[in-house]
Amino acid sequence: MRPFTSVISFDEAVRIVMSAAVPIERTDIVSISDADGRVLARDAVAPDDVPAFDRAAMDGYAVVAADTNGAAAATPRSLTCVGRLFTGEIPTRGVGHGECVEIATGAPMPPGADAVVIVEETTRVETQVIIRRGVTAGQNIGRRGADVRRGSTVVPSGRLLGPSQIGALAATGAARVDVFAKPRVAVLSTGNEVIEPGRGLGTGQVHDVNRFTVSAVVARHGGIPVPGTAIGDTVPALESALDRALAHDVVILSGGSSVGDRDLILDVLGARGEVLFHGVAVKPGKPTGFARVGHTPVFALPGYPASCLSNALILVAPFLRRVARLPPSEPRTVALPLSRRIVSAPGRHQFYTVRVVDGQAVPAFKSSGDITSMANADGYIEIPSEVNAVEEGTMVKVALF
Amino acid sequence: MRPFTSVISFDEAVRIVMSAAVPIERTDIVSISDADGRVLARDAVAPDDVPAFDRAAMDGYAVVAADTNGAAAATPRSLTCVGRLFTGEIPTRGVGHGECVEIATGAPMPPGADAVVIVEETTRVETQVIIRRGVTAGQNIGRRGADVRRGSTVVPSGRLLGPSQIGALAATGAARVDVFAKPRVAVLSTGNEVIEPGRGLGTGQVHDVNRFTVSAVVARHGGIPVPGTAIGDTVPALESALDRALAHDVVILSGGSSVGDRDLILDVLGARGEVLFHGVAVKPGKPTGFARVGHTPVFALPGYPASCLSNALILVAPFLRRVARLPPSEPRTVALPLSRRIVSAPGRHQFYTVRVVDGQAVPAFKSSGDITSMANADGYIEIPSEVNAVEEGTMVKVALF
Repeated sequence: MRPFTSVISFDEAVRIVMSAAVPIERTDIVSISDADGRVLARDAVAPDDVPAFDRAAMDGYAVVAADTNGAAAATPRSLTCVGRLFTGEIPTRGVGHGECVEIATGAPMPPGADAVVIVEETTRVETQVIIRRGVTAGQNIGRRGADVRRGSTVVPSGRLLGPSQIGALAATGAARVDVFAKPRVAVLSTGNEVIEPGRGLGTGQVHDVNRFTVSAVVARHGGIPVPGTAIGDTVPALESALDRALAHDVVILSGGSSVGDRDLILDVLGARGEVLFHGVAVKPGKPTGFARVGHTPVFALPGYPASCLSNALILVAPFLRRVARLPPSEPRTVALPLSRRIVSAPGRHQFYTVRVVDGQAVPAFKSSGDITSMANADGYIEIPSEVNAVEEGTMVKVALF
Repeated sequence: MRPFTSVISFDEAVRIVMSAAVPIERTDIVSISDADGRVLARDAVAPDDVPAFDRAAMDGYAVVAADTNGAAAATPRSLTCVGRLFTGEIPTRGVGHGECVEIATGAPMPPGADAVVIVEETTRVETQVIIRRGVTAGQNIGRRGADVRRGSTVVPSGRLLGPSQIGALAATGAARVDVFAKPRVAVLSTGNEVIEPGRGLGTGQVHDVNRFTVSAVVARHGGIPVPGTAIGDTVPALESALDRALAHDVVILSGGSSVGDRDLILDVLGARGEVLFHGVAVKPGKPTGFARVGHTPVFALPGYPASCLSNALILVAPFLRRVARLPPSEPRTVALPLSRRIVSAPGRHQFYTVRVVDGQAVPAFKSSGDITSMANADGYIEIPSEVNAVEEGTMVKVALF
């Protein structure tokens, strides 16, 4: 066996990983129906004004504002209604002095009219409309271009698209948009003992967990997971799997990254490319490596399910978001008293999972090998490497999953 | 026209909408690869222990703990290495007193051994292993069932599945799981003036925005949007579209919910079912209605894009999450000073959009008709109906989109 001779700090690992994250240049064209959560790759410029015409902003009567001058409950004005305009209709005649046209919100303003009196301020008596409040020119009108001006950038390149940005794109008539491609991420577990879920286990075998947890993290943070079946613990099997995986934007391996004689991944990565680090002073997840093979970043995560998922969340997710050009994710945090004293691994930055129970943070971490250390938790607290214990009752900041 | 005679408060609208939200009973069977974000519909019970055998928790040597009693740097013990166990291998012989077996993390413990000495505390000299620290029985061993006990509930029914719960399901060998179905939501815009994006506009026409914004909100909050092309402003067109839409779990219409003579939706809903409210003291979005037709809840959102999206976020999203059995969504909030005074609509609970610029909340709301009121904003502040103005410099709570 080949014990770790040195480990780097968690902060240093984050620095190395993040500086290896190259924002993707490839783009896709997608329907705006599929654009939620994507990142716009080109300024979306409005080809026309939105709206493309002056329109009524309220239901009421289109008038010449000057005709309503001084109108009030005690001194109403009366106008003759000469027509009616619904949305989608084209005005066929104008509005002159002493006239008005009944108009629906969103309908184009008829020529001559320069304001709308809202229906609530009027009384209709056959063709006469009694106006109980004056309006000023422009009142209750949505001006052509008020929402978006022709030639303006309605959504800038690099913007994460959500429902409202998609709405703005739709408003300008865009049916499809250029977005940055999602990085394709090969996700491969390694280990002779690792068996697909759905199959029975022989002695000494375990079901593959990391393929599923890592794939879910990849998909949540802007990547397309491309999972494969587990790779055996031999150099030829690892080499051939790595060669196929290098066609992806990122490769995430798990297992075989520790110090045992069959922990061969780092050897293979070192032979094919450059190992940027191996061993991080973090718990869970110390035997994590990171390499570059050709241009492809390769994570070698620990095989232990809790270690693997924890490092996927704290190292891979921020990396992937930068590659995918997504803004950093900021977990929701709550400050809670710790329900009992916990002891932390000396010299290692610890991500200690907790449950939230009755307003307290209750330690949930069992061991690095136990996926239930994560699955039964609501979040985690961070314990810096120089802190060896946190006392009961201490207020801790819980980052919620 | 038929002005609103009364409106209900926003809180009352929320109460009515939420009491009409019936959690879905239908279930789907999905691969655990597709289960992220779904809600488990049946307790997942472990069919076997995880791990299914005692295993080494560290790389090192499997020993009889008593043999290492008193071992220290100054008083090492020496054991004879009689074999080697990798993960996935089946032990072929036991460990007796004075013996040890080299063992990799995750490999099954050989009979007779009851602890593992980690490799870092040993020195190997041919077949002899020098032990520099004693271990106690059970040390550095992962016990059978330590992660999950056979017969225990590994993930309970009703739990939202994330990466770690999916990992726990995988660990128990589950390849597929029963989850609650996502509610299917018909999303239909109405209005003669509403044209599909990608098509050119005639006079008085606008592109459909609401279909896309509402569909994105539905998909984000656990539903499957089933959008259709815009419906014309006639009773027969609305009736036939509504009849088709009622096959879904929820129907969301937009446009035609106000007080104009062609705002026919509430008439149609009243004739076919029961209108639970029409008109909410909220801005944007006053002309919002809610009905039940048969067993199907039907939202009638305003046609104005900002009003429609705002009410989709504040009324439809919480409703839909309850139907989908998702936990309530809690937006991240930041407290910031308001960059300038804003005046709010008297008597209406206002959701006022803001940008976050240089540590200030900068008002971004333009008008209810402008989708850029939302698209150029980072979040919103709430202004209760009894507050008519918020002064510059006031600390406001911004809920981030």
